[in-house]
Amino acid sequence: MTESRSDGTERMRPPLANEAFVEWMREEGTSRYHHRHPFNLRMHEGLLTARELSLWVQNRYYYQTRIPLKDALILSKSEDSAFRRAWIHRIADHDGTDATNGGLELWHRLGEAVGVPRDELISLRGVLPGVRFACDAYVEFVRNSTLLEAVASSLTELFAPDLMETRIGAFVRHYPFVDEKALEYFRSRVPRARRDSEEAMNFVVSHAKTYETQASSVRALIRKTEILWHLLDCVSWATSEPGA
Amino acid sequence: MTESRSDGTERMRPPLANEAFVEWMREEGTSRYHHRHPFNLRMHEGLLTARELSLWVQNRYYYQTRIPLKDALILSKSEDSAFRRAWIHRIADHDGTDATNGGLELWHRLGEAVGVPRDELISLRGVLPGVRFACDAYVEFVRNSTLLEAVASSLTELFAPDLMETRIGAFVRHYPFVDEKALEYFRSRVPRARRDSEEAMNFVVSHAKTYETQASSVRALIRKTEILWHLLDCVSWATSEPGA
Repeated sequence: MTESRSDGTERMRPPLANEAFVEWMREEGTSRYHHRHPFNLRMHEGLLTARELSLWVQNRYYYQTRIPLKDALILSKSEDSAFRRAWIHRIADHDGTDATNGGLELWHRLGEAVGVPRDELISLRGVLPGVRFACDAYVEFVRNSTLLEAVASSLTELFAPDLMETRIGAFVRHYPFVDEKALEYFRSRVPRARRDSEEAMNFVVSHAKTYETQASSVRALIRKTEILWHLLDCVSWATSEPGA
Repeated sequence: MTESRSDGTERMRPPLANEAFVEWMREEGTSRYHHRHPFNLRMHEGLLTARELSLWVQNRYYYQTRIPLKDALILSKSEDSAFRRAWIHRIADHDGTDATNGGLELWHRLGEAVGVPRDELISLRGVLPGVRFACDAYVEFVRNSTLLEAVASSLTELFAPDLMETRIGAFVRHYPFVDEKALEYFRSRVPRARRDSEEAMNFVVSHAKTYETQASSVRALIRKTEILWHLLDCVSWATSEPGA
């Protein structure tokens, strides 16, 4: 990344100070994060039909199944045992240490609580094509990006704890037919997303030492917000009336 | 895979029975495994110079550093939480649960015991170009292969426990200047390689249900034996006298 000087020559643009870089990521992330998506707002206002809620769970579940795959790809990009030791728990968080306690299993229970039988959820039959494209695009982005960009793309987790807390309250208030025990995934993510996003932010800040890599980290985060946003677009469109 | 019939038509070649398939893999594997490599034979006969031993440790260490990367790629290829739960410990075996107890750390100690300072080993300065090509080829093979082929390529572990036990005895007998505590990596691999190869063999046998996939599993195992063999070729050539 270069800037023109008044004498017509160019020089490398210097990196932002850490605080300004973090602020840049926070601003781009929070303004694009899917907590502002109309479908999410309707979910949290209690306006979703049971069918919309069930379709969202089935489609978001596909995203959930991609997480261990993209985290394994992130592991495969690091030459540093210490980094891998710190990152590997993310895979176990979703797969569990046995069949009863992983994040994916918690989604199976959430599915049942909104009326989607476990086998139906696992079959992925309810996954919309556009949701598949977006989630697969996330895995491919991570596969083809640098380690720094791949880690930066995980930083939507910065905004997840607030979203999860709002969601738990909204479900309890507005969707009483959903057993509260089935909200355990959202509860589990509050501390984990805090820890994970803090670790990832420390990595990104300490490894993006040029303006160019800072900018590509921000672009990675923006790409990730687009993936999450498009997921909700697809679910929303699939349940919309034409001509409304 | 097709065979010609006497009437000139072709039919699919049927898969081998499990026992015959396992026997095929064992035969191809054991006849090509690097326990028969002249450099390994010289190692176990106590004929290596201190320089040869040190060069081998530095080069084999590069192979060791590739293991968590290829295992992370294998994780990223599986859609099955149960498979990933069973495989993920392989990464932790090498990275450790903290900085003191992983397989890579045990290699740092082995390096020190044969006179290679830890920083020198970690720097990879002693890694021969051909060793780098072969070990990187292993990672690329796993990256570009099917999950079944990637798992099949790990089956050299079938032959590792015997090799490790022979090696421990050979070091104690022939290289008394190497502190016995530094052989802990070889000791740790005996039960782990038994467990890992058994799990991998079960996966390969249950997933290679056509002759074609059985044959590609055998080819994957052969490719892996070539990688291990070439590593020893390179170390051997680098310490050979021309015209001998």
